[in-house]
Amino acid sequence: MALIVQKYGGSSVADAGRIKNVARRIAAARDEGNQVVVVVSAMGDTTDELIDLAYQVTDRPDVREFDILLSTGELVSSTLLAMALKEMGYQAISLSGAQAGIRTDSAHSRARILKIEVRRVVKELEKGNIVIVAGFQGVTDEMDVTTLGRGGSDTTAVALAASLGVEGCQIYTDVEGVYTADPRLVPEARPLAEIGYDEMLELAIYGTKVMHPRAVELGELYGIPILVASSFSQEPGTLIHGGASMEVRNKVRGVAYDLDVAKITVVGVSDRPGIASSIFQPLAEAGISIDTIVQNAGLDNVTDLTFTVAKSDLAEAMRVVEPIAGLIEARECVSDASLGKVSIVGTGMQNTPGYAAKMFQVLGEQGINIQLITTSEIRITCIIDEAKVKKAVRALHRAFELEVKD
Amino acid sequence: MALIVQKYGGSSVADAGRIKNVARRIAAARDEGNQVVVVVSAMGDTTDELIDLAYQVTDRPDVREFDILLSTGELVSSTLLAMALKEMGYQAISLSGAQAGIRTDSAHSRARILKIEVRRVVKELEKGNIVIVAGFQGVTDEMDVTTLGRGGSDTTAVALAASLGVEGCQIYTDVEGVYTADPRLVPEARPLAEIGYDEMLELAIYGTKVMHPRAVELGELYGIPILVASSFSQEPGTLIHGGASMEVRNKVRGVAYDLDVAKITVVGVSDRPGIASSIFQPLAEAGISIDTIVQNAGLDNVTDLTFTVAKSDLAEAMRVVEPIAGLIEARECVSDASLGKVSIVGTGMQNTPGYAAKMFQVLGEQGINIQLITTSEIRITCIIDEAKVKKAVRALHRAFELEVKD
Repeated sequence: MALIVQKYGGSSVADAGRIKNVARRIAAARDEGNQVVVVVSAMGDTTDELIDLAYQVTDRPDVREFDILLSTGELVSSTLLAMALKEMGYQAISLSGAQAGIRTDSAHSRARILKIEVRRVVKELEKGNIVIVAGFQGVTDEMDVTTLGRGGSDTTAVALAASLGVEGCQIYTDVEGVYTADPRLVPEARPLAEIGYDEMLELAIYGTKVMHPRAVELGELYGIPILVASSFSQEPGTLIHGGASMEVRNKVRGVAYDLDVAKITVVGVSDRPGIASSIFQPLAEAGISIDTIVQNAGLDNVTDLTFTVAKSDLAEAMRVVEPIAGLIEARECVSDASLGKVSIVGTGMQNTPGYAAKMFQVLGEQGINIQLITTSEIRITCIIDEAKVKKAVRALHRAFELEVKD
Repeated sequence: MALIVQKYGGSSVADAGRIKNVARRIAAARDEGNQVVVVVSAMGDTTDELIDLAYQVTDRPDVREFDILLSTGELVSSTLLAMALKEMGYQAISLSGAQAGIRTDSAHSRARILKIEVRRVVKELEKGNIVIVAGFQGVTDEMDVTTLGRGGSDTTAVALAASLGVEGCQIYTDVEGVYTADPRLVPEARPLAEIGYDEMLELAIYGTKVMHPRAVELGELYGIPILVASSFSQEPGTLIHGGASMEVRNKVRGVAYDLDVAKITVVGVSDRPGIASSIFQPLAEAGISIDTIVQNAGLDNVTDLTFTVAKSDLAEAMRVVEPIAGLIEARECVSDASLGKVSIVGTGMQNTPGYAAKMFQVLGEQGINIQLITTSEIRITCIIDEAKVKKAVRALHRAFELEVKD
């Protein structure tokens, strides 16, 4: 008897009808002779509604209370799913994160899983139960409830698969898998049959929302193949695994984009040691995540330092940086909140010339000006006008022939 | 420093604004130098919405899962209330029923409190926290979540007061206290300043909804005076305590009514031992609560046996009773679903003649036919046409001069 771990996202359990649909899928996996552990997210927009409720009460919700509040969303969906399975005649039990042994550090709202004590899950499986685990939550050593932050339920699922020694993890969502580009933008985009962990990480970090990078990293670390597929169809989905890139060398795998980019440039900075840290240390202390950083050292020891942040962080970042720009005698400090990011990703680009040149050419042909360029070994990213991002995605998808099956 | 226990009902915390209002009341109690333990119900209609959700998924919700589901309502309200207090600069912490040490039997959805291990509550109070306890819930020895059934949060509050050795418990709701009659029916009805446990119990059982009999019983058992007052005003409310009846002898205290009454009469039953149990045993096994039972033995050893049930149980009760009526050779089995109940309650009626006669006279003058009569030492109840219940309540309130202050 094989043991499988499945995870169902919020849109897959958004109402009673969808919960019953998910129950039927789980039952089918059980009928095939598997032991089944299921991780479930909160129904639909529940988490957002709970967040909204907290902010109606206070502008600064207490982190301990906030985590207990948010954790109720997954308790609701997991109990309803267990009920639906019992209604169908299957043995099932819901477990909270705490009951499932998910032990975390005490960093409320963005806790990291330290270990999973799988005893209770194993015991319930041995009793013949389908085990439904409330995702996104864990418990500290002091038995305080924590939540895992964005991508939390995916992370719960992959971590459980690793701890239970399962050979794969199935993530069910509302799309057919990992696409070559966002299908709402590019009608000819298609789901990939497989993709490597590294490629998936780059796609996820650079704007493909289907899986959170954190769960992908965990999958790579423990060598857990992750199937991403739709809970609404029987399509095969995308398998994220380590061996994928062997088969598909020399190829762009996907185009990612992100519209949430603001840029700050500190102009005319003297190019001497310690300057960068004098700017980025205070930003880190203010809790602002910096994305891309570009610095071009000029000939006269004066340089422009540019970096990007999320648009919602721009005002706060400027508030932090402007006085520092004065202190370090920079010429000025300018910002632009109307930017976007477009990236091409593929292990095949590694050590293979021509991809960057082709990307820039395609954007040039479309009349799109490139403001910043950053690259990794398997990714090239251009920061461009927000208004031209969608056009860029479509042109790149076409130019790299991503609609053609591998 | 005094320790007080307060409980706020669902309507008192129905939205963010009301939660902040409750937080201000709690803060005021703290500012007066008290240690404060607060028990809170789920927001507004949350519990009904969760029940509805479960029944959308299944007709027979699993009792274990159902209790976890329902318990989330109080987790939400208790965390929001703790956040609101912290926002105001007060130290506060929410505790689930399990964390507050509320240990129950394993009768899901109607669990009884076995004991309260107050260690954690006491520890948090000693740290200077206002302790917000999620009402209506507890935990079994196996750490399975249970709910306490109707009146659960009131019961949590009175039980906590008893366990903590507190001298009183304050129940805040959306009415000004215990009224002489339902003020929606009787405009001149007024809140009582005080009432005895026994009187409150009779009023509660016979239709006054402000407090559940179970919490009143617990208050009586442990000698905990219970103040019932509005969370929306500063009116003094009603004190339920043991000594109340001393002051107000020879007086009807209140008029209660209930519109949810259906009657079944098994006509022409031979009056021999075992007949009653042959009817009521199967009804109990079917989970049907019987209210009033009246039997009049006739001269010829044939009797009519009449009893009342909730209207929602009538069809099921008839399904159980009709075949039995055939077996025991009763003449027929008839039912009436259009009945109601009106009661007068007062310790002063004890051993004092004339109250029953006056009640029947008042109803007679109003042209109201009495179908059944039952009494306790401090209560007289008449079962009458549903359509005439409100008229009866008003006439009785007037006749016994309940609008006149003690």
